[in-house]
Amino acid sequence: MSHDAWTTLERLRERRPLVHNITNLVSMDVVANALLALGASPLMAHAEEEVADIAGLAHAFVANIGTLSPDWVAAMHVAASRMADQGRPWVLDPVGVGATPYRNAAAADLLRRRPTVVRANASEILALAGAAGTTRGVDSTHAADEAVEAAMAIARVHRCVVAVTGAVDRVTDGSRTLEIAGGHPLMGRVTALGCAASATIGAFLAVERDPVTAAAHALAVFGLAGEIAALPPAGPGTLRVRLMDALYGLDEATVRSRVRIS
Amino acid sequence: MSHDAWTTLERLRERRPLVHNITNLVSMDVVANALLALGASPLMAHAEEEVADIAGLAHAFVANIGTLSPDWVAAMHVAASRMADQGRPWVLDPVGVGATPYRNAAAADLLRRRPTVVRANASEILALAGAAGTTRGVDSTHAADEAVEAAMAIARVHRCVVAVTGAVDRVTDGSRTLEIAGGHPLMGRVTALGCAASATIGAFLAVERDPVTAAAHALAVFGLAGEIAALPPAGPGTLRVRLMDALYGLDEATVRSRVRIS
Amino acid sequence: MSHDAWTTLERLRERRPLVHNITNLVSMDVVANALLALGASPLMAHAEEEVADIAGLAHAFVANIGTLSPDWVAAMHVAASRMADQGRPWVLDPVGVGATPYRNAAAADLLRRRPTVVRANASEILALAGAAGTTRGVDSTHAADEAVEAAMAIARVHRCVVAVTGAVDRVTDGSRTLEIAGGHPLMGRVTALGCAASATIGAFLAVERDPVTAAAHALAVFGLAGEIAALPPAGPGTLRVRLMDALYGLDEATVRSRVRIS
Repeated sequence: MSHDAWTTLERLRERRPLVHNITNLVSMDVVANALLALGASPLMAHAEEEVADIAGLAHAFVANIGTLSPDWVAAMHVAASRMADQGRPWVLDPVGVGATPYRNAAAADLLRRRPTVVRANASEILALAGAAGTTRGVDSTHAADEAVEAAMAIARVHRCVVAVTGAVDRVTDGSRTLEIAGGHPLMGRVTALGCAASATIGAFLAVERDPVTAAAHALAVFGLAGEIAALPPAGPGTLRVRLMDALYGLDEATVRSRVRIS
Repeated sequence: MSHDAWTTLERLRERRPLVHNITNLVSMDVVANALLALGASPLMAHAEEEVADIAGLAHAFVANIGTLSPDWVAAMHVAASRMADQGRPWVLDPVGVGATPYRNAAAADLLRRRPTVVRANASEILALAGAAGTTRGVDSTHAADEAVEAAMAIARVHRCVVAVTGAVDRVTDGSRTLEIAGGHPLMGRVTALGCAASATIGAFLAVERDPVTAAAHALAVFGLAGEIAALPPAGPGTLRVRLMDALYGLDEATVRSRVRIS
Repeated sequence: MSHDAWTTLERLRERRPLVHNITNLVSMDVVANALLALGASPLMAHAEEEVADIAGLAHAFVANIGTLSPDWVAAMHVAASRMADQGRPWVLDPVGVGATPYRNAAAADLLRRRPTVVRANASEILALAGAAGTTRGVDSTHAADEAVEAAMAIARVHRCVVAVTGAVDRVTDGSRTLEIAGGHPLMGRVTALGCAASATIGAFLAVERDPVTAAAHALAVFGLAGEIAALPPAGPGTLRVRLMDALYGLDEATVRSRVRIS
């Protein structure tokens, strides 16, 4: 990569990109707060009457199917299509894909629109790739490394970048694969942090053109903030509060010394 | 009861039951976080296109009418019906019943589907039983003990278990009534903790077949976590954060020494 | 003003007014928690089947268009109309007006129903007045003082009170304009605090008939709580938690000595 995660974060804080989210109802609060804490401007809007206009203003778009319904999915297609027309990036978070045929079809249809980046956990990536038929709710039951092959296949077929998050995060464009260390297991006990990670990728894509670099930097920064938030251990309530403080407060020395991308 | 609340909580943490929620829009975040902190797997989904499939995966279902609309209520019926077919438990939280005729009809219709457990505050139970015609929003204006008769009547007529929460919580199947001490008045100043208590009952039902025992253990654990979270007093913001930490961190010594069910 | 902010807050805590909100999906949690912490009773309901009945019970209503859709906007009109018929107050928060033609039309239509108070940031007020054609998402990009002329024009034409929030808040009925100092810049890094301020105005309107006084007292109390929550600085996660504690814990000495309305 031509530069480091700190440079990208600094640019994000200067430009305050507008990130449009059509996200699930559980994640609304934490996604908006994570984006604001990072320095981005979140915007949530889903009505078909305005979604194309909103997409016209946005620097990045994030589609998250966690609590999907037909009208919201239709709005995601409109926004994604508008972003593509403008040459602007968008992220697909296929929450819970594998759980139901409806969810599988919705995720597959959105994938065919070629998101810039897909972010999911290992079992979702396996389900999305057809490598696994089922997913158990929204928690990952497969290790991230088992899903790397599936992620690379998705990336190649759909010409997008795929981020698989877990104990170690992986970002691949089908040939190049980066590994990002960081995060903390207790993050899995706070709802919608995966959704917030996807939104963070959206914000980074708005200020960094290379999607592999943007996704890797985003996950490195998000994971580092999570690590800081988890220690000393207190519990998932405290972790969530400190995560917002950490996303806001990350400084150059911390980011430069602790981000580990390989 | 054949065993204690600690045993049930331990089993929940081992099995991580999948709890499907169709809950109100205010409670989404706190319900999902409470379930994760406890050790359960929350899943929110309401689209008619997938709700039966989701119910097919779930170990328990929780229907909460706080911000009801016809399509969401229809989805609750589909999920409840599927749970009944599978012999799996579900919980009804009739938030704000008594406030409007629409809400009364929706609550009564769902009650006729025989939830495993109904959880509500005293004024909601009175409204649900027809013992009181009005409710003032979603806060309880009647003492829990006045509602016990109504709860017993509902339990007998609808062959379900009814939990009335308040300063002291009661759980009844129409003949047996347990009292659960615990909780803290400041919990009333945090939104949707009643909804989170209902979801907690759902998680406990997934690992304990006797619904009186499951509901009593759930309310005892939730109340104990609330008590721990409320002290030393700081305010409702801090209480909510510490509640998640306490649900996550409860240990055997604390649960065995402090749970009071009689 | 015939009395001070403390007196109004004390009255609110005694009467616990029922505040009906049709608000955006991002703000549900923080709005309900802020109202409960203050001492009011929040109620969220949007179904056309019950919205008029809910409005019949409410002491104040707050319409917030942040994540608007046609059915929710229709429900806002029903509730606003019912409040007007009953001579009860309501607040319009035109979140993101200026961003899209649909949002502009929805805000203008609601404004024609003569809300008791409109609360918005400077760029939203300018957009609402037609003084500016665009708004950049939901964050204010104009200083509050530039928008005072526009606020006065709206207040005169639509015979309502307009509150413009920013570094200094202004409340005007078109002739009289009050300035309220307070708050902290870090509040802009927590989502939906503007929405929570609008809901706070709703709660104050329920116990104070003069809308200029009610809005000024509400913003003074909310800003003071924000100031207390922001110091010593920790970050936006901690600020949000402490804000709820501060709204709950504000005492007479603090309010009397620190509220600055001129």
